[in-house]
Amino acid sequence: MAYRTTLARQDRDLELRQRILDCALTRVADGGFAVLTMQALAEDVGIATGSLYRHFRGKGELAAEVFARASQIEVDALAAVLRAPGQPVARLAAGLEQFAARAWHSRRLAFALIAEPVEPEVDEQRLLYREAYAELFVELLEEGVRAGAFHIEQVALSAACLVGAIAEALVGPLSPPARAAREQGRPSLELEQVSRTLTTFCLRAVGASLPAEETYQ
Amino acid sequence: MAYRTTLARQDRDLELRQRILDCALTRVADGGFAVLTMQALAEDVGIATGSLYRHFRGKGELAAEVFARASQIEVDALAAVLRAPGQPVARLAAGLEQFAARAWHSRRLAFALIAEPVEPEVDEQRLLYREAYAELFVELLEEGVRAGAFHIEQVALSAACLVGAIAEALVGPLSPPARAAREQGRPSLELEQVSRTLTTFCLRAVGASLPAEETYQ
Repeated sequence: MAYRTTLARQDRDLELRQRILDCALTRVADGGFAVLTMQALAEDVGIATGSLYRHFRGKGELAAEVFARASQIEVDALAAVLRAPGQPVARLAAGLEQFAARAWHSRRLAFALIAEPVEPEVDEQRLLYREAYAELFVELLEEGVRAGAFHIEQVALSAACLVGAIAEALVGPLSPPARAAREQGRPSLELEQVSRTLTTFCLRAVGASLPAEETYQ
Repeated sequence: MAYRTTLARQDRDLELRQRILDCALTRVADGGFAVLTMQALAEDVGIATGSLYRHFRGKGELAAEVFARASQIEVDALAAVLRAPGQPVARLAAGLEQFAARAWHSRRLAFALIAEPVEPEVDEQRLLYREAYAELFVELLEEGVRAGAFHIEQVALSAACLVGAIAEALVGPLSPPARAAREQGRPSLELEQVSRTLTTFCLRAVGASLPAEETYQ
C-alpha cells in the first residue's frame, strides 16, 4: 500500500510539474522571459509560491527548462524537413523557410528563445541548442557536398555560420521595436522578404548549385 | 577651496573607476565573466568590496560596462578596416579576416564577449553591439551594391546575417572545449581555416563579384 501511495504521489508530482511548465511556456509565449516570475507563475498554476520552489530551485532553472522544451520542438520540426526525401538544396531552402515562418507566427516566443536578455542558465541552453541546430545542418551539408549540391570545405564551421545567420536575421524583425512598428502600421519587413533574403543568403553561402541560384536570388 | 576639493575628489573617483574597469577587463580576458566576482575584483584593485559597490551596483552593471568597453574597441577596429579606401569586396574580406584574427589572439575574451552565459545586463549589451556591427556592414554593403560589387536586396537583413554568421563561426573554435583540445595537442581548427571558411561563406552570401569568388573559394 505504501508503495502504491508513493507511485501515486510521483504521478501527481509529474503531472503538476508538467502543468507548471505548460503555464510557464504560455507566459513566455505571451510576454517573454521578462514576465516569467515565480510569483506570477504560481498564481497561474493555482499553487503557493513555496510549492513552486519545491519543483524548481528558481527562475533560472525554470526558464532553462521552458527554453529547452520550446527549442526541442523547433529542432524536431527543422529535422523533419531537413531529413525529408528530396534534393539537398531544396531541403535546405524548405528548412529555412519553415524556420522563419514558425518564428514569425510565434514572434514573442521566438525572440525570447533567440535573443531576449535572460538568466545565464538560459544562455547555457542557447549554446547547447545552437549546437543541436548546427548538427542538423552538418548532416545535410555533408550529404549535399557528396552529391555535388554544396561547395564547402569546412562543413561544421559552415553549419555554425548558417545557425548564426538564421538567428540574427530573425532577431531584428522579431524584436519588440519591430513588433511595435507593425502594430502601429509603420513600415516593417514582411515574412516573405525575411524568408527570401535569408534563403538566398544561406544557399549562396554554401555554394548551392543551380537551379537554386536562379530560384532563390 | 571646497570647489577645488570636490573637483579633486571627482578626479580621484574617475581614476579609481577607470582602474576598477581595467582590472575587471584583465580578469575577464583571463578567465571570462565567470571569474569576475565583486570580491575577487576588489582584491585585485586593492580596495574594500564595499567601496567597489559605491562605483558599481553589482556584477551585472560592472560586467555590462566591461563588455561595452571591450566591444567598442572591436567595433572601432572593424570600422577602421571596413571604411578604409579600396574595393568593397576586398574591404569586407579584410574586415572579416581581421575580426577572426583579433578574436583568435584573445580567445578567452572573445568567447566571453560573444557567447559566455552571463547576466542579462550583458545580453542587453550584446544586442546593442550586434546592431553596431550590423550598421558597419550596412554602410559597406550599400556602397558595394551601388558599385555592383554585392548583389543583395535587403541590405539591413543581410548585414544582420553577416553578424550572426561571424559570431557563430567563432563560438565553437573559441569555446573552452576547443581551447582544451588545442592545449592537449588534439586536432583542432586553425585560424587560417576559420578565417578562410568565414570569408568564403560571407562573400558568397552577399553575392560578391569576381575576383573575390576566385580568390576566396
